[in-house]
Amino acid sequence: MTRVLTVSALVYCHFIVQTSSPTALKLTEVCSSMAHTGTHSQPVRSCLLLVVVSVCVQQVHGVWPLPQQLHQSADRGCLSPQRFSFTYGRDSAAQTGCSVLDAAFKRYFSIIFPDFTKGSENRLQYVWSEPQPFVVSVSVKTGGCDGYPDEDSDESYNLSVSEGQAVLRSVTVWGALRGLESFSQLVYQDDYGSDAMAYSKFNVFHWHIVDDPSFPYQSRTFPDLSNKGAFHPFTHIYTQSDVMRVIEHARMRGIRVVPEFDSPGHTQSWGKGQPGLLTPCYKGGVPSGSFGPVDPTIDTTYKFMESLLKEVKFVFPDSYVHLGGDEVSFACWQSNPNVRKFMEKMGFGKDFTKLESFYMESIMNMTAALNRTSIVWQDVFDYHERIPQDTVLEIWKGEKYQAELSRMTQAGHRVLLSAPWYINHISYGQDWRNSYAVQPQNFSGTEEQKKLVIGGEVAMWGEYVDATNLTPRLWPRACAAAERLWSNEEKTLNADLAFPRLEEFRCELLRRGIQAEPLFVGHCKHEYDGL
Amino acid sequence: MTRVLTVSALVYCHFIVQTSSPTALKLTEVCSSMAHTGTHSQPVRSCLLLVVVSVCVQQVHGVWPLPQQLHQSADRGCLSPQRFSFTYGRDSAAQTGCSVLDAAFKRYFSIIFPDFTKGSENRLQYVWSEPQPFVVSVSVKTGGCDGYPDEDSDESYNLSVSEGQAVLRSVTVWGALRGLESFSQLVYQDDYGSDAMAYSKFNVFHWHIVDDPSFPYQSRTFPDLSNKGAFHPFTHIYTQSDVMRVIEHARMRGIRVVPEFDSPGHTQSWGKGQPGLLTPCYKGGVPSGSFGPVDPTIDTTYKFMESLLKEVKFVFPDSYVHLGGDEVSFACWQSNPNVRKFMEKMGFGKDFTKLESFYMESIMNMTAALNRTSIVWQDVFDYHERIPQDTVLEIWKGEKYQAELSRMTQAGHRVLLSAPWYINHISYGQDWRNSYAVQPQNFSGTEEQKKLVIGGEVAMWGEYVDATNLTPRLWPRACAAAERLWSNEEKTLNADLAFPRLEEFRCELLRRGIQAEPLFVGHCKHEYDGL
Repeated sequence: MTRVLTVSALVYCHFIVQTSSPTALKLTEVCSSMAHTGTHSQPVRSCLLLVVVSVCVQQVHGVWPLPQQLHQSADRGCLSPQRFSFTYGRDSAAQTGCSVLDAAFKRYFSIIFPDFTKGSENRLQYVWSEPQPFVVSVSVKTGGCDGYPDEDSDESYNLSVSEGQAVLRSVTVWGALRGLESFSQLVYQDDYGSDAMAYSKFNVFHWHIVDDPSFPYQSRTFPDLSNKGAFHPFTHIYTQSDVMRVIEHARMRGIRVVPEFDSPGHTQSWGKGQPGLLTPCYKGGVPSGSFGPVDPTIDTTYKFMESLLKEVKFVFPDSYVHLGGDEVSFACWQSNPNVRKFMEKMGFGKDFTKLESFYMESIMNMTAALNRTSIVWQDVFDYHERIPQDTVLEIWKGEKYQAELSRMTQAGHRVLLSAPWYINHISYGQDWRNSYAVQPQNFSGTEEQKKLVIGGEVAMWGEYVDATNLTPRLWPRACAAAERLWSNEEKTLNADLAFPRLEEFRCELLRRGIQAEPLFVGHCKHEYDGL
Repeated sequence: MTRVLTVSALVYCHFIVQTSSPTALKLTEVCSSMAHTGTHSQPVRSCLLLVVVSVCVQQVHGVWPLPQQLHQSADRGCLSPQRFSFTYGRDSAAQTGCSVLDAAFKRYFSIIFPDFTKGSENRLQYVWSEPQPFVVSVSVKTGGCDGYPDEDSDESYNLSVSEGQAVLRSVTVWGALRGLESFSQLVYQDDYGSDAMAYSKFNVFHWHIVDDPSFPYQSRTFPDLSNKGAFHPFTHIYTQSDVMRVIEHARMRGIRVVPEFDSPGHTQSWGKGQPGLLTPCYKGGVPSGSFGPVDPTIDTTYKFMESLLKEVKFVFPDSYVHLGGDEVSFACWQSNPNVRKFMEKMGFGKDFTKLESFYMESIMNMTAALNRTSIVWQDVFDYHERIPQDTVLEIWKGEKYQAELSRMTQAGHRVLLSAPWYINHISYGQDWRNSYAVQPQNFSGTEEQKKLVIGGEVAMWGEYVDATNLTPRLWPRACAAAERLWSNEEKTLNADLAFPRLEEFRCELLRRGIQAEPLFVGHCKHEYDGL
C-alpha cells in the first residue's frame, strides 16, 4: 500500500493512577503526568488542580480531554478584558521574558476575548459582577523557556479558580500550557485559531515527511532528493525554513516534532535524486529498469544514511527519530544477484527478514551513536526480536494488537500504540466510538509490562487526504483518542456519556475557527462560516 | 433514521442515443438532450458540436462529464484577454440584455482570465500566436432569458472552435450555459468560484429544506414553523430573501430548484410551531406527550397543507414539488384511538398503509390542483400502486432497485433513481467507482419502460455533514454520477479510463476554488490553499 502520512500525533502522559484526593474546594481537577525518570515506569507525580470557575455564561463548559479529576460549582462570574491579566507568580522560575509563556499569554488572551482583540472592544461588555480585576497567576517550578518539550516533560498542572483570580501551578512551562488551555475551555467565548492539536492536548507531532510518491523535505546535504523526488521542486516541498517554522510553532504550544525518514521500503521517491541508493530489480537475468527498497548490501547506502541522519539531528531538536522499517517487499532483493551473493556471504540463507534486520540494526546503531532514540514500526520487532533495548516500537497492524503488546512489553520494549487509531480509515456514522472504546493497557501482562505502553498515536495517512479534507476528517474524530490517553479510563469509557461533551467541544473548536465536522444532526451557536 | 438532506442534485437529460455523426472537423463534440414533449419518452433532438480547441497549454484538457461525442486535434492557440470577447450571433434570439447570458459572459470571462479580472493583466501575457482577436459567438434559437429552466428545457448545444473564433449554437439559453462551461473547460487557466454543480452540469437542485430535527424554512404563512421549529429562529433559518437568492443564483446557472416538504413522516419539527398538526401518541390509554406523523384524520391538517403548498407554489417557480412520503412509522397512529376510529370508518381495517395512501393521495391531488407535478419517494408506490399517472417516483432504497425500476415503469410511471448514489454513505478508498458503475437502464423492461427513467439524483444527506465537510465530500465524488447521466454509456463505463480524466477535472475544480478532495495520492499544479 502506498502511504503518505499527513498528520499524526502521539500522546504520552497517560494511564496514570490518581494518587491525590481532591480538596474540598468547589471545582477541583487533578491532572497527573509521567515520571521524570527515563523509564516511564512509574507515575510518581500527580498534581492537584483546583478550579472555581469564572465564566460569563449559563453553564460551565467541559474540558476535553477530561482531566483526571474535576469538581465544579454552579458559581459564575464574568471576565472583563480591561481588568483581566495573566501574570507570573512571585515564586515562579519563569518570569516575563519567557518566550513560551509570554506568547501563550497573548494567544490565550485572544482566545478568551476575541472581540476585544479584533479591535471592537466596545461591542461586548464583560462586566465582573462586582467590578474587580481578574488575575491568572502562573507559577512554574523549573524554567526551560527556551527549550523543547521532550518525552520526560512533566505536563502536569494545578489550576484553581476563584472569584477574582486563578492560580496555575506547574513544574514546567509545558504543564503551564496545558493548564492555560484548560482555563480557556472553562471560559465561554468566541474565537478563532488553528491549533487543534494543542486544544486537545496532543503533545507529539509525528511528521512522516517522505514516502514512495514524493520526497518533499528539502535536504541541505542532498538537495537533489527533493529537486528530483518531490511532486514539484518549488511548489510542493518543505524548505528548511518551513521545517523551522513548524518546529517553533509546535514548541510554543508544547508539542514535540518527531520526524520519520522511513526506510528501507517506501523509498521510491528517494531513488530519483540519489542514484545507486535503491536496489535494481532484475528480470530474466538482467536489470528490469525498476527499483526496489534501499540496497542494504553496499557501503554507499550506509554512508548516505549516516549523512542524512546527521542532518536530521541538526534540523530536528527532538531526541527521537522515527526510522520506519515497515512493509518491505523482498521480491526485488530476491531478484538481484548481488543481493543474493551478499545473503550467502552473510549466512542469511534465503531469509530476507535477516537482511532487513541487518539493515535496520545498522541504522539504529547509527542513530544511537548520534545520541538519538529510534522509533521503528512493529515489522522490525516481528522479524528480529533482539533489537536495542531503548528502541521504541510502534504497533500499526490492526489485527491482534493486544497479543503484540504482550510480546513487545514481555521483551522489555517501550511501545506506542497506533493500530486502533488509523482514523484515515473512514466509515459511515459515529466511528469515533471505536477510537473511544480502545483500552491500550487491556492485554495480558504484568503491571510492569503495562507501564511500557508509553503512549498512543492517531494516524491520518494521506492516500485520500490533503488540504481540502484534512481538518474535518481529523477533528473531532481524533479527540476521542486524546481522552483515552489523557483521562481516567474508569470515568471515560462510556461513549454515550462522552457524546454531549464531545459535541460541546466540537462547537468550541468551531468557535476557535477549526473546521471540525459534526458528530450527528444538531447545531452549534457559532457555525463554521468558511464556505 | 433521522435524515437531513443538505444537498442533492438531479440530472435529467440522459441516456440519449446519438443520432448525428460527427463532421470531419478537428474537434467535434455532440451533445444530446431530452425531447420537448411532456412525456420525455423520446430523444428527438441532438446537436452537433464542433470544437477546434484554442488554448494556451501543452495539452487539451478533457470535458467532464464527457460529451456524447468529442473529436480533438493537436492544434493549440493562446487567448488574449484584450482581444477576447463573447458576442451574440446575428441570428440569435437572445441579444445583449439577456440576463442569463450577459451574466454568464461575465462569469466565464473571469474563469478564463482570472489574472486579468483580478486587475493584474500585466502579470501574464496571453498572446495569440498570430495576434488576432478571438470571438465566441453565441446563438440561441429561442429566447426565454428571464424564465426558469424546467424539465423540458433543451440543454443541447453545438460548439465549434477554430483559430480566431468559436461558434456556440443552442436551442435555449440553458443549452448555451452548458456549452460555455465546456468551452471554459477546454481553456486551461487558474480560477476561483463556487458553483461546482454547474461545473459538472448538474441541472436540478433538490432542496430537502425541512426534516425532523429542524424547520429552517421561514414561512410567510406560518412563521411559527421556523420560529419554534428551527434550531434557532434567527441564525439557523432560510429567510424568504435567502430562498430567492438561491433560486436566482441557480437560474443564472441553468439549475432548477425543486423543494421538498416531506410529510406525513419526518415532521417532528413541524409540530412545534403548528399545534394540532401531528398525531398525539397514546400509552396506556392516555396521551403520552409525544407525537407521531401528521394526523391524517382531521380536516385542519388538509387546510394547513393546502395553505403551505399554495405558498410553496408562490415562492418556488419550478413546476415540480417533492412531497416526500417516506419512512412513516405506524406505531403512533396505531396507539391513537381517534385514528383507529377513522380507520374503521374508512374501511381500512388494520392496514395503515391505506391510511398513508389516503393522506398522500389527498396532498397529491392538492398539488395537481395547484398545477404542480408531484415527486414522491418510492414508499408511496410500494404501498399503493395506483397513484396519479403523472407523479414522478423516486427510488431511494438500496436493495433491489432494479426490480423496483421494472415495477414502476411497468406501471407507466416516470422514475428518478437515487438509491445507488447516496454518497453520504462514505467508505474508505475510491468509492466514486461504485457510483460510476451504476447503469440506470440496466433492468428488465421494454425500451418504452427504459425511457421512463428520466434521471438520477446524487444525495448528500446531512446526518454527518454540514458546512465544515460538505464540499470535500461532494466533490469530486458526485462527478462520477454526472458522467453516468450525461455521457454515452458505452464510452464511459471503464472507471480506470475515467480515473485520469476525473483527476484532471478535480484539479480544475481546485483551480476554480472548489474544495474538492483528492481521489488518491498525487498533486495538482494549483492546490487548495484554504487551510
